[in-house]
Amino acid sequence: MSLIYFTPGPSELYPSYRKHLLMAMDLQLGSINHRSDSFRKIYKYTDEQLRLLMNIPDTHQIYFAASATEIWEKLISNCVELESFHLTNGSFSNKFFDFAKLLKKSPKQYQVAEGEGFDVHSIEIPESSELICTTLNETSTGVRMLENDLKFLKQKYPQKLLCSDLVSIAPYANIDFSVVDSVFFSVQKAFGMPPGLGVWIANKACLDKSSQLHAKNIHIGAHHTLQSFYTNYLKFETPSTPNVMAIYILGKIAADMNQYGIQQIRDDIHKKSDLIYSFAEGHPDFHPFVRLTEHRSHTVAVLNTIHPAKQTIEKLQEKGFMIGSGYGVNKHNQIRIANFPSTSFVDLQKMLHGL
Amino acid sequence: MSLIYFTPGPSELYPSYRKHLLMAMDLQLGSINHRSDSFRKIYKYTDEQLRLLMNIPDTHQIYFAASATEIWEKLISNCVELESFHLTNGSFSNKFFDFAKLLKKSPKQYQVAEGEGFDVHSIEIPESSELICTTLNETSTGVRMLENDLKFLKQKYPQKLLCSDLVSIAPYANIDFSVVDSVFFSVQKAFGMPPGLGVWIANKACLDKSSQLHAKNIHIGAHHTLQSFYTNYLKFETPSTPNVMAIYILGKIAADMNQYGIQQIRDDIHKKSDLIYSFAEGHPDFHPFVRLTEHRSHTVAVLNTIHPAKQTIEKLQEKGFMIGSGYGVNKHNQIRIANFPSTSFVDLQKMLHGL
Repeated sequence: MSLIYFTPGPSELYPSYRKHLLMAMDLQLGSINHRSDSFRKIYKYTDEQLRLLMNIPDTHQIYFAASATEIWEKLISNCVELESFHLTNGSFSNKFFDFAKLLKKSPKQYQVAEGEGFDVHSIEIPESSELICTTLNETSTGVRMLENDLKFLKQKYPQKLLCSDLVSIAPYANIDFSVVDSVFFSVQKAFGMPPGLGVWIANKACLDKSSQLHAKNIHIGAHHTLQSFYTNYLKFETPSTPNVMAIYILGKIAADMNQYGIQQIRDDIHKKSDLIYSFAEGHPDFHPFVRLTEHRSHTVAVLNTIHPAKQTIEKLQEKGFMIGSGYGVNKHNQIRIANFPSTSFVDLQKMLHGL
Repeated sequence: MSLIYFTPGPSELYPSYRKHLLMAMDLQLGSINHRSDSFRKIYKYTDEQLRLLMNIPDTHQIYFAASATEIWEKLISNCVELESFHLTNGSFSNKFFDFAKLLKKSPKQYQVAEGEGFDVHSIEIPESSELICTTLNETSTGVRMLENDLKFLKQKYPQKLLCSDLVSIAPYANIDFSVVDSVFFSVQKAFGMPPGLGVWIANKACLDKSSQLHAKNIHIGAHHTLQSFYTNYLKFETPSTPNVMAIYILGKIAADMNQYGIQQIRDDIHKKSDLIYSFAEGHPDFHPFVRLTEHRSHTVAVLNTIHPAKQTIEKLQEKGFMIGSGYGVNKHNQIRIANFPSTSFVDLQKMLHGL
């Protein structure tokens, strides 16, 4: 039986995914050379559609890596000499912090409990921190930051680089690129594609920092350095053979989203998000994990559940819906519901009815 | 018009690729969780089929990365403290060497001219070199090493790690895994898949070396370290969300190849290879670039051409065939013809007839 996936990624494929995949096959895109005009046109098209969708100005370049996890490593390696500063409140923001330690930096963190959000006004970041690392939507706990938090941080610390992990929130997040130096995401969340592609958006300040580190003989990596990305980007090429089919399909899905309208996508998500949280607040068996409504994610809702999560998940699966379990220590007592553009209000109503 | 791709990668898709892709879609593999039993079964199946196809013993683990280029970086980072030793004779073996420099190691190389092969008996490798890096099939020049060369190197230098880049030659190469510590390849060459997946095969000696470097506080990376791969491999999982669809399809294509028979695949390649080189030797406009027949690759034939390569390529394209240009400085005066399992003897005959 076919299922509708409300899992927080990999997730339900975007309705037009299959159509674009078949077209990519008909165009033999799995065989084309990545140093050909055919590929350059694909890169350029996807670049244009993403810029339109996410309002990305030409101060920032768009690069294609394999995953957001890979980008964690490359961003730290290329933009931090000694110290990054991390806002952490869950498994993924903490892994980003851990990566900095594994990469032999001396990262610092401002940590709040899982399920809590940040009051950015109360965060003091040391002079020595070079890069502020934020996670706009902590997928493990369903806590969001506000786009305005990024603005506040950049205005308070204009000399530092500021990045934001947009996994599970792009393209819903309405980012002001004048206040962030780099953002990144993977496509298996709200873009409704299978995993295998990460998107890294970075400006000249990141590139310059990478060049400075390289000049100082600091290890910035060999594969997927910002220099190698940038040099190739100028020709709409990639440093090595990329996931060409996924880059093509991402462009087409971004175009579909542009046609539908990003504001409509956001409105849909708000409407569905209201439905999930009001359902949970009115149901004896579920309760939103995140206490303060302003910290509750619109794209990944995490609910405490009285019954074992496994039982709830299996019950729904029999009815044709797949939702996620809690993450880590909350695997058994929480469920996670993705609220991405690929699933409709009606699908969500049916799924919640089955809970 | 649909083309038959004889390009040295990305290349013609394996005949069953489309069928497996559609099945992957029907199974909704683009949406499944990579920490689920569904995914673990896929990983296990692909692992089993690759082991059968390439005769990989359980001394070696099979990991999935994004590309062979990524694996260059990870292999050097995880298995070299100070010095790797590279056999170089073309663009790709040289890039592998360059990666070691970018990663702040002090690599040494034994270099021969492009188009030349190696007499491994004459190579002296310093005591200080920790990892011997070979490229079994130099895709830029169509020069091969022999599987026996690996045996010779390992017997002469049993204390050193030995790795071989099998890009554009796996699964044709008949590797004795008792003499190599690590091999790797990407799937867009002889496996006939679109790009987006790299396969890294490594044994415990590589893992131990990585652990030693980590214990010495040496930078081995954060994403896709051998430890993170190995720990997850024990559960048939991956460190982060991988290209699930490609892992599934690789297993299915390996199974198809197993059913057809690896010896039959090798025989086909030999027969087609003989056809290409005898054609070139009998044709006034083309000549094999590699002088010694024993150094000529069976899977990527490089031919000098009297006419500009572009002209030859465009002529063939009008007839429904795509071949590759020369690489780098030889872009205009050479053509490259891939001889992978995806194209038949009859296709090859027709293509050569059109030259």
